[in-house]
Amino acid sequence: MFLVNRRGEQILGQPSYRSLADLPQAPELVAIVVRAAGFEAALDESLRAGARAIVAITAGLGEKDAAGLALQKAFADRVRAAGALLVGPNCLGIADTAAELDLTWDQFRPGPVGLISQSGNLGLELAQLGHDAGLGFSRFISVGNQADVDCAECLRALIDHAPTRAIAVYVEDFGDGREFASIAESATAAGKPVVLLTIGATHASARVAQSHTGALVSDSIAVDAACLASGMYRVETPQQMIDLLQVVLAPHQPSGRRVAIAGDGGGHVALAADRLIARGLLVDGFSDRLSASLAGILPPTATTGNPVDIAGAGEEDVFNFERVVRLMAQSGEADSILLTGYFGGYSEQSEDYRRLELEVAAALTRATHDTGRFLAVHSMYPKSPTSQQLRRDGVPIYGDIDAAALALGQRANRIANPPLGVPPLPTAIHPPTPFATDYFGTRQLLAEAGIPFAEARPAESEESTIAAAGAIGYPVVLKALGAAHKSDAGGVRLAISGEAQLKDAFREMHARLHPTIFSVEKEAALASGIELLIGVKRDRSFGPVALVGLGGISAELFRDVAVALSPVTVEQGLALIASLRGSALLLGHRGRPRLDIDAAARMLSALSRLAAARPEIAEVEINPLLVLERGVLGLDARLVHQSTDT
Amino acid sequence: MFLVNRRGEQILGQPSYRSLADLPQAPELVAIVVRAAGFEAALDESLRAGARAIVAITAGLGEKDAAGLALQKAFADRVRAAGALLVGPNCLGIADTAAELDLTWDQFRPGPVGLISQSGNLGLELAQLGHDAGLGFSRFISVGNQADVDCAECLRALIDHAPTRAIAVYVEDFGDGREFASIAESATAAGKPVVLLTIGATHASARVAQSHTGALVSDSIAVDAACLASGMYRVETPQQMIDLLQVVLAPHQPSGRRVAIAGDGGGHVALAADRLIARGLLVDGFSDRLSASLAGILPPTATTGNPVDIAGAGEEDVFNFERVVRLMAQSGEADSILLTGYFGGYSEQSEDYRRLELEVAAALTRATHDTGRFLAVHSMYPKSPTSQQLRRDGVPIYGDIDAAALALGQRANRIANPPLGVPPLPTAIHPPTPFATDYFGTRQLLAEAGIPFAEARPAESEESTIAAAGAIGYPVVLKALGAAHKSDAGGVRLAISGEAQLKDAFREMHARLHPTIFSVEKEAALASGIELLIGVKRDRSFGPVALVGLGGISAELFRDVAVALSPVTVEQGLALIASLRGSALLLGHRGRPRLDIDAAARMLSALSRLAAARPEIAEVEINPLLVLERGVLGLDARLVHQSTDT
Repeated sequence: MFLVNRRGEQILGQPSYRSLADLPQAPELVAIVVRAAGFEAALDESLRAGARAIVAITAGLGEKDAAGLALQKAFADRVRAAGALLVGPNCLGIADTAAELDLTWDQFRPGPVGLISQSGNLGLELAQLGHDAGLGFSRFISVGNQADVDCAECLRALIDHAPTRAIAVYVEDFGDGREFASIAESATAAGKPVVLLTIGATHASARVAQSHTGALVSDSIAVDAACLASGMYRVETPQQMIDLLQVVLAPHQPSGRRVAIAGDGGGHVALAADRLIARGLLVDGFSDRLSASLAGILPPTATTGNPVDIAGAGEEDVFNFERVVRLMAQSGEADSILLTGYFGGYSEQSEDYRRLELEVAAALTRATHDTGRFLAVHSMYPKSPTSQQLRRDGVPIYGDIDAAALALGQRANRIANPPLGVPPLPTAIHPPTPFATDYFGTRQLLAEAGIPFAEARPAESEESTIAAAGAIGYPVVLKALGAAHKSDAGGVRLAISGEAQLKDAFREMHARLHPTIFSVEKEAALASGIELLIGVKRDRSFGPVALVGLGGISAELFRDVAVALSPVTVEQGLALIASLRGSALLLGHRGRPRLDIDAAARMLSALSRLAAARPEIAEVEINPLLVLERGVLGLDARLVHQSTDT
Repeated sequence: MFLVNRRGEQILGQPSYRSLADLPQAPELVAIVVRAAGFEAALDESLRAGARAIVAITAGLGEKDAAGLALQKAFADRVRAAGALLVGPNCLGIADTAAELDLTWDQFRPGPVGLISQSGNLGLELAQLGHDAGLGFSRFISVGNQADVDCAECLRALIDHAPTRAIAVYVEDFGDGREFASIAESATAAGKPVVLLTIGATHASARVAQSHTGALVSDSIAVDAACLASGMYRVETPQQMIDLLQVVLAPHQPSGRRVAIAGDGGGHVALAADRLIARGLLVDGFSDRLSASLAGILPPTATTGNPVDIAGAGEEDVFNFERVVRLMAQSGEADSILLTGYFGGYSEQSEDYRRLELEVAAALTRATHDTGRFLAVHSMYPKSPTSQQLRRDGVPIYGDIDAAALALGQRANRIANPPLGVPPLPTAIHPPTPFATDYFGTRQLLAEAGIPFAEARPAESEESTIAAAGAIGYPVVLKALGAAHKSDAGGVRLAISGEAQLKDAFREMHARLHPTIFSVEKEAALASGIELLIGVKRDRSFGPVALVGLGGISAELFRDVAVALSPVTVEQGLALIASLRGSALLLGHRGRPRLDIDAAARMLSALSRLAAARPEIAEVEINPLLVLERGVLGLDARLVHQSTDT
């Protein structure tokens, strides 16, 4: 390592060179730590000196305007032309603990976590929280403005990096999000779970949406779809990231949602059960056999169902904690074991107790290895010697019971919902065959994709409206097309049963809305079906995202929607529909008939394939899609062309 | 203080007496720390010696069976007969830091929090978490089995206890919950916020419910109603309790939901904004004036909207943190200020930085006092000297941004929803005037309370059914009453338009369901209204709890319901209806007419008053209550009498 400083002074007792040109050999990597104004000169000097990699630890280098972005691009181009790499600018450095390379503010301790962060300070926070939880890092890359090396590239490099066993990513700008998701899918498949922290979870998409689908598929929802596809875990805070990393790095993983709980004290075990259930886990009662086994070693005041309150038995004999955990782990009645409350605190009481509790902790670790069961511990004493020993042995330890519940719930949820896979985008139709994006053009395009619609005819005059209705047969629906084509604006009149009523409706809508054209449509048997909303929106990072929700208020007021990267298969479509909270309505709720969700899933799949093959479609939706006992029927459609996108 | 030990040995270097009878004077308070078998003798000895208060630190003393409960009651009776008090048994002790009384396992440091806990270990966990957050305790009472002194009594005693400024309660068994809520309301009114932790949040009520209301008003929902009435804050974990206590004890309180955020780094401020918004707070943009003021002191790379990223200005001059906070606090554009990220970490870098950052922290505290604004800090360094100084000065400090967001969100939510008040129960009608609890009896009782119902006539035979429909006028609804009176079971047939259809319906339902009696009812104009579910359930602790939700799937599948202790006023009823996520449907959603929610609120109030005055009503509900543009119409009713309660 050489230090370079233009005054050539000693730095922390080490000699320095006045310039890179003075170095006795070509530098492999140069970390440039200068003010923005001096960056270009330092960069050029580094490349001239033969540097293969540049780490640009600078601030204020052009991230706010077009000129700055152009400058960064120029720097990156210059680096690439020289056959080198650039990390940053505006990054906080990199570390590789196995290689003993540390160009960061903090000291990263060695360990299994590969950390990629677009924010330097968040990277430091994660490092500290990780160290508190006993987690070390294999690599840390502060990617800064990603002028050359980006998050996706770093992620890819960690897949084959042996010391890395799990990957933590903080990213604000995904670039090509679908490519990012594909790499994350590969990492997951290689047994390296990826935990993602990003921002914008509560912000609506900035662009003004022109369809319900457009409004419902926010940037954040698109990230959810990418996680569902790739197997990435999404967290909301740095602490949650560390909490979850503890789980996924544990030597034995849960295989389902069932948790067995034990602790010394009714309050702690009851609270634990509450939080686990709230986070989607199951705390089912034990068999009589297991309860009897537990009762055999515990005092009569203990409760031996699930959760188990050992009721003072820990104070009688600290080894009772291990006996209870081992019985639960051996039983096969739980996928995970949670010990909660006081355990971990004996080691802070006296030297004798410390020795004893450390022995018990070692026995607990053995119990998990012997049975292959996942064990997590919530302790009132998360920093005690016992807790530290458990942590070193790979047992996740939490000071907050809800943190344990949330992390375990996320892991169990992923087991129940394995990654869907990041679907390749079909080759775009090129040159795109043109189609009319008006209402009838959209219906035709969708009908060609196999989606049935209620019979409809265009009409401009009162006479042609009446003729259309006569040909279709009453009852009919009259829609005023154009800007006013919205039921909210009174542009749709349902249940028109005869000519007189049709005339009235035509005249009233004509006078009020001045549409250029009307659509006369066959009225569907609404009462015999349930309305779905299906749609696809092209996200700027993740490409086409398919959405399904119940029509009416559920999608909008309760945000009860399911999303997936397009195209989706029929099977995936079925799973998405089934995942809606309101899906009971379709599946034969309270004596109603079961509706044709297979047909609905086929339509969602067809719509998603159509939109995926035509990049010119910004948004497309069928709302409502009436699901009947047999088949489905599109009752309205809307399409936003990329070129008309605002 | 005297020590008593039957062997008369020295204890921790102090002499002890062989028995209470040997004491040189009557003991004011006796802490009995013996095994269960020796408790009775020790109790009797204490009372004989003249003890005025007994603290029973025992375990395994009869909490699991009837015999044990009877024994406890006998002990309590004996204590009361002697004019003394008993805390416990099975408690972990008490502490009063002002009086320097500490009969607990842990050392409680003095401070403003009065802590009442039904679980000893949870009390200890709260003590530790509180100490970590710089919070001390005025009193700690481990109430144990509450044989004599109960949580409510302890709560009442803290209202006038000067050193206590906020009250933390962990309770499993509320006893008379309404009385408990009333005392909490008084404490809140006296300026002592009450923060409640309880269990059972995820468990359905054990009793099998006989109505939708019964199923929806779980024990936990009843606690929510008590919190809404009394102003208690409800938390889910010990950590959340401490997090929230920090907020409510801060010297200046927020007056609304608007938060101004500042930090050094875009990632931290964006994450903070996400979490705050997710927890119900507002992060609105600043005025041009405020942004310009901020821009005047920050580098050009800073973002000066909301959130504010000072973009390295902290490293340039640590006082920039204070300047930014002061400008935001002075602006009047935010109710709370949140500083997030790196601040707090300078004090760990060097002696110079420590001195500087501590000065800045003192200036921050002055800024909150000068402006009267609430300030919270999320710091990557929650235990640094600076963070500790801020904590001592009453500024809430969090290591987890979501913990800060949740606590502040709860406080802001309470400000927006001041306590409804715990309503006194009306004098019960005594002796209760009998009423028929069958369908027509229930309708009559409710009609007398002012609730209009669709016209209905009982009918037993096909002939009387036809006659009833003729008198009412088609279309009609036919209901098979009795056990099968459920639409799920096919016991309700809608939209019967003529005699032939009625006959078919009668015969089919008669053959299938064998009802003893039918109801023939006028079909209501369902399409012109929205269906609500209104009901009241008598909770075993909190008495009658009123519930309102949208009919159909919203209440059931999305748990979109609002609850309040009965009786509720019309105004409260309106607020409950407006608080439903689905309330938009009633208020003129997407061009629909606004419906008569005033009438709906009057009906909810009437139903709640009726049920509150008649303790013999276990559950009563009107489902659906059709809300029209003018007025409402009950379409079905159900009542469960206490005596028929399972």
